Amino acid sequence: MQITPEILQKLNQIIGETFVFIDQETRNHYGHDETEDYVFPPNVVVKPANAHEVSEILKLANQYKIPTTPIGARTGLSGGALSIYQGIGLSMERFNKILNIDEQNLQVIVESAVITQVLREAVAEKGLFYPPDPSSQGSCWIGGNVAENAGGARAVKYGVTKDYVLNLEVVLPNGEIIWTGANTLKNSTGYNLTQLMVGSEGTLGVITKIVMKLLPKVNHNVLMLVPFYKANQACEAVSAIFRAGIIPSALEFMERDAIDWTLKFNPNISVEVKPEIQAHLLIEVDGNYPEILMQEAEKIMNVVEKFEIDEILFADTEDQKNALWKMRRSVAEAVKSNSIYKEEDTVVPRYELPKLLSGIKEIGAKHGFKSVCYGHAGDGNLHVNIIKGDMTDDNWETQVPVGIREIFELTVSLKGTLSGEHGIGLVQKNYMDIAFSKTHLELMERIKFVFDPNNILNPGKIFPDEF
Amino acid sequence: MQITPEILQKLNQIIGETFVFIDQETRNHYGHDETEDYVFPPNVVVKPANAHEVSEILKLANQYKIPTTPIGARTGLSGGALSIYQGIGLSMERFNKILNIDEQNLQVIVESAVITQVLREAVAEKGLFYPPDPSSQGSCWIGGNVAENAGGARAVKYGVTKDYVLNLEVVLPNGEIIWTGANTLKNSTGYNLTQLMVGSEGTLGVITKIVMKLLPKVNHNVLMLVPFYKANQACEAVSAIFRAGIIPSALEFMERDAIDWTLKFNPNISVEVKPEIQAHLLIEVDGNYPEILMQEAEKIMNVVEKFEIDEILFADTEDQKNALWKMRRSVAEAVKSNSIYKEEDTVVPRYELPKLLSGIKEIGAKHGFKSVCYGHAGDGNLHVNIIKGDMTDDNWETQVPVGIREIFELTVSLKGTLSGEHGIGLVQKNYMDIAFSKTHLELMERIKFVFDPNNILNPGKIFPDEF
Repeated sequence: MQITPEILQKLNQIIGETFVFIDQETRNHYGHDETEDYVFPPNVVVKPANAHEVSEILKLANQYKIPTTPIGARTGLSGGALSIYQGIGLSMERFNKILNIDEQNLQVIVESAVITQVLREAVAEKGLFYPPDPSSQGSCWIGGNVAENAGGARAVKYGVTKDYVLNLEVVLPNGEIIWTGANTLKNSTGYNLTQLMVGSEGTLGVITKIVMKLLPKVNHNVLMLVPFYKANQACEAVSAIFRAGIIPSALEFMERDAIDWTLKFNPNISVEVKPEIQAHLLIEVDGNYPEILMQEAEKIMNVVEKFEIDEILFADTEDQKNALWKMRRSVAEAVKSNSIYKEEDTVVPRYELPKLLSGIKEIGAKHGFKSVCYGHAGDGNLHVNIIKGDMTDDNWETQVPVGIREIFELTVSLKGTLSGEHGIGLVQKNYMDIAFSKTHLELMERIKFVFDPNNILNPGKIFPDEF
Repeated sequence: MQITPEILQKLNQIIGETFVFIDQETRNHYGHDETEDYVFPPNVVVKPANAHEVSEILKLANQYKIPTTPIGARTGLSGGALSIYQGIGLSMERFNKILNIDEQNLQVIVESAVITQVLREAVAEKGLFYPPDPSSQGSCWIGGNVAENAGGARAVKYGVTKDYVLNLEVVLPNGEIIWTGANTLKNSTGYNLTQLMVGSEGTLGVITKIVMKLLPKVNHNVLMLVPFYKANQACEAVSAIFRAGIIPSALEFMERDAIDWTLKFNPNISVEVKPEIQAHLLIEVDGNYPEILMQEAEKIMNVVEKFEIDEILFADTEDQKNALWKMRRSVAEAVKSNSIYKEEDTVVPRYELPKLLSGIKEIGAKHGFKSVCYGHAGDGNLHVNIIKGDMTDDNWETQVPVGIREIFELTVSLKGTLSGEHGIGLVQKNYMDIAFSKTHLELMERIKFVFDPNNILNPGKIFPDEF
């Protein structure tokens, strides 16, 4: 698809030429996200200011059948915002306002380009709590979180993005603007288009406003780092903690290499790790009553002490807590800085984690790749970083996809699925046949067609190239 | 549509003639639920044993274009299970097994005709907790709860049915059987067909198995009944409690008449109510630490004492707690025994409750009907029972629907919607235009068409007769 002078002129008319970009630098800038080293620049980048402008752009795109890709903060890990068929790159960056923090109803209305952490801090100032906290919360946007159904460390207790979305203002591919639901905690009124839109990765509509539920702020937490001599025992401890009746507010797993690389990447974080330690669990409990938190922490200690562990580190100060969280949150970046890699976002029922972890290692050994695993173990969500290291390019291109397929087959056989919180996007789409039958994929494709008969909105994502 | 001898014979072949019924008594029995006094018998009642038999029945229904209505426990309040176009009544009663309580993963796999309370008690025996507790929990089925996205008193803290559904085995109208998702707490893999199915009222597929997440059991609670001199102040107190940072595990509102009629209906429950009391809040907090619950109860007392209240009744024993809950749960039945009525299931953001309540009373006064209101105030979910009393049949038929329309218009203007937990079904469908634009309804209708192009499955529900 070529963007003709005529189309450019119409785009200028819709949003003003200040917000239409065709220079190579801008197009490249908006052509990549955090997914490996992919770059797919759109032909033109547009920056609309409101739902009406988005609507006009989509009407134009429909008329001329121009692929149009919504672009958020480009922190995605599945290539969901990449303009793989070029066309229009629809940057949402001007949708950056928190419209209303409703302290009476414990809700917030927010535009889609507000940084997640900015939102969390703004509601915290009013004594309220927006729990989802993806590792990229300092830079990702809430609209992208909704589009990918992002999770984060606190999902284990508080749920993922979908659990906070009450209502969405969406511009449909035909340019019509709807609110998907109502601003209510309960809703049994027609099909749940709100939840159909959540996690649809910008393929069904462009999210412009989000109504989210909030909780009262939680005031205290206890954070501990537990070193395990055996990685599999760390995984086993995860479900044992729940079976003891405790729901931690975070329960994160990090393999040895994840910690080592992170400490190398962040020399100012000091955590001592004995050479024999294979993995860590970072465990947080939260609540409003410190004395109860200490009781819960003790219960957790009683559980983990049944495994082979080294001394537990309790974070005594806010600074220590921040350091441990920074360590956990920068694992992905640390791995990335260390080698070419591919990141998978496997998820299984949490008791299956030990099987998943050992299976991944076996598959890696068979195909000759190393992996570094870490993630939200409390949710059964294990991020698998496959490291290129000194693998040949040829093996990297041919063997690794075979191995990834086997990892996903294992995941699905354990009643899990391909992605827990990153989405399918571009990089996982050709594995979708592992999780879904042809019938199932066709159902999804026909739903896509209901919303977007000309397939203009974020084409080439989610669905496998052939099925 | 006539059920010909040929079709009957095929049904007999599929499930055995012991499970095919054409006698009038059986047809009438399966032709009504708890919605007013409607009776819509199907031509034939079938009782399949497994998903394969459901599949064969749906293939047959598709071939001959026979309307087919899934029938649960028939405790519904929106007429969702009524065979309004006759055809096949698909009773799910033989799907009555709890297949696996997975203590390792805190999940349960259950067939759709298990009574909700049976499920709750079975998991409680293993130290686990399935929170949703519709008032009809002693008789309703979990499959119906999923189909209608049922709520209940504990939804205010723990969420509704949708929040516990991880994965569904569904027989599609074309007879294909799929699992909608995975058995995981997080899932960003393709469109969320699980949540599209939840609340779709048996119009998109027949639910045969459900994977639900469970929580660790919660061991203690405190229950109090707070009498308010002014009904509106009771509504105002609701959001004040949340603003004090407390999330009660139940927060129920009952108007004076609701209590009076219920006490008359249940003479063995003894609660003394002063003549000046206009409404009550029934408030529960739960948790594992009794000392904390007492602190939370005190905080709640501090909040409600700022309003004009009479003495708070604390339920000291399990018997007292059960009596109070029995009182609350039998309001609907008590109202029903007292008069012909229509029940609406309005829901708004909770701070808007006082406006909703006073608006409903004004609308009633204008159109000459009395209403008795009660419900899950913590969720903003107010059940409105419109009482026929000594209204003429003519006014009942003509004025009341006008009034109901005004009530829903008010609800939607307050950012609420038509149904919080009962579904739209038959009785609310012609009000759907108030909540949704034509575009929006058409989207839903086209999604219905994706699943059910011949419109055989539960036709005549959710969608307005004309739009």
